[in-house]
Amino acid sequence: MTRILISEVGPRDGLQSVSRVMPLQARQAWIAAEAAAGVREIEVGSFVPARLLPQMADTAALVGFAKGIEGLAVAVLVPNLRGAEHAIAAGAHKLSIPFSMSETHSLKNVRKDHAAMLDEIRAIAALVAAQPEAQRPHFEVGLSTAFGCTMEGAVSEDKVVRLAVASIEAGAREVGLSDTTGYANPAQVRRLVRRTRTAVGAERLNTLHLHNTRGLGLANVVAGLEEGITTFDASLGGLGGCPFAPGASGNIVTEDLAFMLEAMGCETGIDLERLLKVRRIIAEALPGEPLYGFTPDAGLPLGFGSATA
Amino acid sequence: MTRILISEVGPRDGLQSVSRVMPLQARQAWIAAEAAAGVREIEVGSFVPARLLPQMADTAALVGFAKGIEGLAVAVLVPNLRGAEHAIAAGAHKLSIPFSMSETHSLKNVRKDHAAMLDEIRAIAALVAAQPEAQRPHFEVGLSTAFGCTMEGAVSEDKVVRLAVASIEAGAREVGLSDTTGYANPAQVRRLVRRTRTAVGAERLNTLHLHNTRGLGLANVVAGLEEGITTFDASLGGLGGCPFAPGASGNIVTEDLAFMLEAMGCETGIDLERLLKVRRIIAEALPGEPLYGFTPDAGLPLGFGSATA
Repeated sequence: MTRILISEVGPRDGLQSVSRVMPLQARQAWIAAEAAAGVREIEVGSFVPARLLPQMADTAALVGFAKGIEGLAVAVLVPNLRGAEHAIAAGAHKLSIPFSMSETHSLKNVRKDHAAMLDEIRAIAALVAAQPEAQRPHFEVGLSTAFGCTMEGAVSEDKVVRLAVASIEAGAREVGLSDTTGYANPAQVRRLVRRTRTAVGAERLNTLHLHNTRGLGLANVVAGLEEGITTFDASLGGLGGCPFAPGASGNIVTEDLAFMLEAMGCETGIDLERLLKVRRIIAEALPGEPLYGFTPDAGLPLGFGSATA
Repeated sequence: MTRILISEVGPRDGLQSVSRVMPLQARQAWIAAEAAAGVREIEVGSFVPARLLPQMADTAALVGFAKGIEGLAVAVLVPNLRGAEHAIAAGAHKLSIPFSMSETHSLKNVRKDHAAMLDEIRAIAALVAAQPEAQRPHFEVGLSTAFGCTMEGAVSEDKVVRLAVASIEAGAREVGLSDTTGYANPAQVRRLVRRTRTAVGAERLNTLHLHNTRGLGLANVVAGLEEGITTFDASLGGLGGCPFAPGASGNIVTEDLAFMLEAMGCETGIDLERLLKVRRIIAEALPGEPLYGFTPDAGLPLGFGSATA
């Protein structure tokens, strides 16, 4: 049975797209309930200046809380070296830095070109390497806009592969491929995963971060699975939608992804009935916020679990 | 480049789940516009008694209209021999009869057990065979609830394979596999398509009818594509939703399916920009009716078409 890790990114990627601030207590309840349902990795927030993203102001406190949950890998996003310093001080298990494959998007988003981003990755890798081994976090570079960019359009696969190699050479432990804009299709996912894994080594690319903007999110997961990907980011309720397409879905939905993987016979460690109940915590903390997903509306198939066991 | 047929079933499967009757003129406009956008096969209605489904009352008139559109294959659903007689009289190019793999569902839905259904299929096949070759329609059996049933739960794959063989032996030209209830997952689709094709011959199973009830519709398409399936049913705007799960999506959405296939480099013959505009006809004819799909909200990716050409 294939063991697949669903990495919940809602408390970070979902909430950063919602203008309201979800109270710290609700985020703690969400994280605790999702971990109790069997989710083994949660990206709890990002270390960005609070004046830019007030929703992420108490990420350090959340890391501390989440580290108290046994068996949970606590991930955070860091935009730069300074963020990485905060993440390490807070004791996060995993750091991800987004590295936009579209230089136009990178300049607009973090005012850094590709060379400057690689310098930043190098500096973070050095900081990580300087930590005592027992506390050293896992450092991953998320290759964002890897499947296309709303400003540049198509993104060259050669460029993605080249920058994946450069990220590893700069000291990242792993790269992930991110479909930030919901442009990816299953054929492209297979091709780019295969090419990147060939270039950096299969053990250096295990993660896909997919969006469901055009409804292809789970189709792209199937393509990734077939290429050996073992970690998929997802957001409970697809929280946050898609910032590039108002009204459109953003991250793939944790509930639907978990249902699909379990139905296929993969082992996610997740108890689906319990997972579906976690959604209420978000609905109560952010009333009126659109939530996505099909399985929560339709329910599990009759006899599910017994039938597929 | 793989040529894939998208068979539009909205005027039948979509409209039969909507209680209002869409005016004949609007259905004609829909069919004409979708054919003009490049859709090559449309199931325009079903031949069921008008007292049971008033929405399908003028299917014969629609068949006549649709046959006037050059290059369009005109399909209809028939529940029994009597329906097949009407379909042949109207001159439909293709007849499908649903054959529920769940005997409980079959008894409840059409008051026939499996043996009675096979008799019906045999009678229709004989009628079809008796037509002059030039007018002889294509006769397909749609194996419904093949991936699970809301009354029986799991449906045995052995049984589906056995009834697929029996349908061909009874004289059907082809069988299709239908996920009537939205229970299918990609691993199951691959397995059941492969097993059925092995049993009946690959040329006898080319069609999947998938629902998106739990969000897995396009993921299941990917699995079908990889097993050599070349025809996928879909409904514009996912019209009709899912009768088993109020508020949940039903048929996979033509717009998202066409976008995915074209993005993957398959040849559907469809002009996506034109297809997306057809949706307006339904929205105007059935105001307030929920329509589904992601690509219509998000739009096509920047540079799409030039980038993937």
